[in-house]
Amino acid sequence: MSKEHNFQRLIRFIDHNGQESHGDLPLGIATDMIEGSTVTLLTGNLEFGFLRTSETGVVTKLLCPLERTNIIHCIGLNYQHHATEAKMTVPKHPVVFTKPADALTGPFDDIHVHPDVQNQIDYEGELTVVIGRDAKNVRTEDALDYVLGYTCGNDVSARDYQVPADISGGQFSYAKSFDQFAPIGPCITSTSVIQDPQTLNYVTKVNGEIRQSTSTADMIWNVKQIIAHLSRGTTLRRGTCIMTGTPSGVGIWMNPPSFLKDGDVITVAIENIGSITNTVVFD
Amino acid sequence: MSKEHNFQRLIRFIDHNGQESHGDLPLGIATDMIEGSTVTLLTGNLEFGFLRTSETGVVTKLLCPLERTNIIHCIGLNYQHHATEAKMTVPKHPVVFTKPADALTGPFDDIHVHPDVQNQIDYEGELTVVIGRDAKNVRTEDALDYVLGYTCGNDVSARDYQVPADISGGQFSYAKSFDQFAPIGPCITSTSVIQDPQTLNYVTKVNGEIRQSTSTADMIWNVKQIIAHLSRGTTLRRGTCIMTGTPSGVGIWMNPPSFLKDGDVITVAIENIGSITNTVVFD
Repeated sequence: MSKEHNFQRLIRFIDHNGQESHGDLPLGIATDMIEGSTVTLLTGNLEFGFLRTSETGVVTKLLCPLERTNIIHCIGLNYQHHATEAKMTVPKHPVVFTKPADALTGPFDDIHVHPDVQNQIDYEGELTVVIGRDAKNVRTEDALDYVLGYTCGNDVSARDYQVPADISGGQFSYAKSFDQFAPIGPCITSTSVIQDPQTLNYVTKVNGEIRQSTSTADMIWNVKQIIAHLSRGTTLRRGTCIMTGTPSGVGIWMNPPSFLKDGDVITVAIENIGSITNTVVFD
Repeated sequence: MSKEHNFQRLIRFIDHNGQESHGDLPLGIATDMIEGSTVTLLTGNLEFGFLRTSETGVVTKLLCPLERTNIIHCIGLNYQHHATEAKMTVPKHPVVFTKPADALTGPFDDIHVHPDVQNQIDYEGELTVVIGRDAKNVRTEDALDYVLGYTCGNDVSARDYQVPADISGGQFSYAKSFDQFAPIGPCITSTSVIQDPQTLNYVTKVNGEIRQSTSTADMIWNVKQIIAHLSRGTTLRRGTCIMTGTPSGVGIWMNPPSFLKDGDVITVAIENIGSITNTVVFD
């Protein structure tokens, strides 16, 4: 199915009339300025495409740019520096695990953490791909044609349920699947703005302190290769998110390890996208 | 939300008028006899509940009992015999991995296998739980209240993408997530018929030869414990499937290993449910 997307940075928000809308955020507006700004409204949806209208709306509350996802695929060990810090050998294919739909949450939402899993909460700032049309058996060279755009993501992880093999059996998904463990946003920057996803600088901060700083040029498998691998024999539905892996600097591999505490604030900021800022709340 | 489900064995099918319907399959009808039989039609859906009507329909083609799932959670290493044959230590919690929605397929559907992953295709017959209402932070003792019913499942796996750590990085999901790698059916047997899911005998056959034979009494973590664990901090949406682990007798641990070939037929049959029979087709 051919369809058209006509936006620079797609946002979803509540406007001054209390209506939920999609809008096109101009590149010049910083994340701190989104709420309160006036944007051109977009009509449409993921199925039929997003088109600009002649109407505008005032952003009262910014929402998660996707109302819903099907699944979030996550890539492990995709930056050489992180692989080195984690003392892990890079396998022959991307390492894949998942988060379910309910892990998705908005760019400024608090992340509520269940009492049982609060001991080793950690962040992973990640460039996140949003699939725009159903993809299966996609060739590497065609893979970016299936991308709606790019957003910031945080692959929040409960390390004590992930890393010890006698707890997790070595499987990562459970420790990363709790509700709200996948904040994304603030917008989805289109492929017309980010034509090459392998040239983006980004940082992750905890309470304002920079913990991760990298360029996506340092990825082991690039976005094209990841999409081709994930779509081999498997349908990636539009709206699927792909968190493309984290660089060095996560809390578990600091010396000594440093995990997130109640009230800690994590920011992931990526060039040409903006930033997400989420506070950890221990329930 | 309270809701009522009133069926013994829920099926979804195309009737003699070409209409898609839900019906209630009497316990006495064997799987081979479903197509051609007359069943009482059910009205409703997962959200509002299923209720019996006074109408009947003839089953022309049996479909997957669920039109769609959100996600399929899978449990590894949940039978002591299988853990022993796989030479793996049982961790302190259930081992969890996932399959995406598009892995779901019907009880008699062919399973099409992508050319890249045909070398080590294997079966895992599993009692499969279908969640009937949204569940979060469920106590073990209440867990069965959230179950719609039980069905047969096959956790189809491409072992060469699952087991070697230098290929998969130790993560199981990719090798089990291909489209159609989760056939279920033929029906969903209600919790009024299967009041105790830990007393069911079941077998898995390849081309008519019994490969797996067990009782669910041999599970390490029972269905209640699995639901409580999966719902900790995580919403399990109605329609979610849980494949509860496989007993001993899978192909990879035979001596020598025996993988599925193009045209092989796998049957999973569970007491009070019926059976699914799927043919492997190498694309």
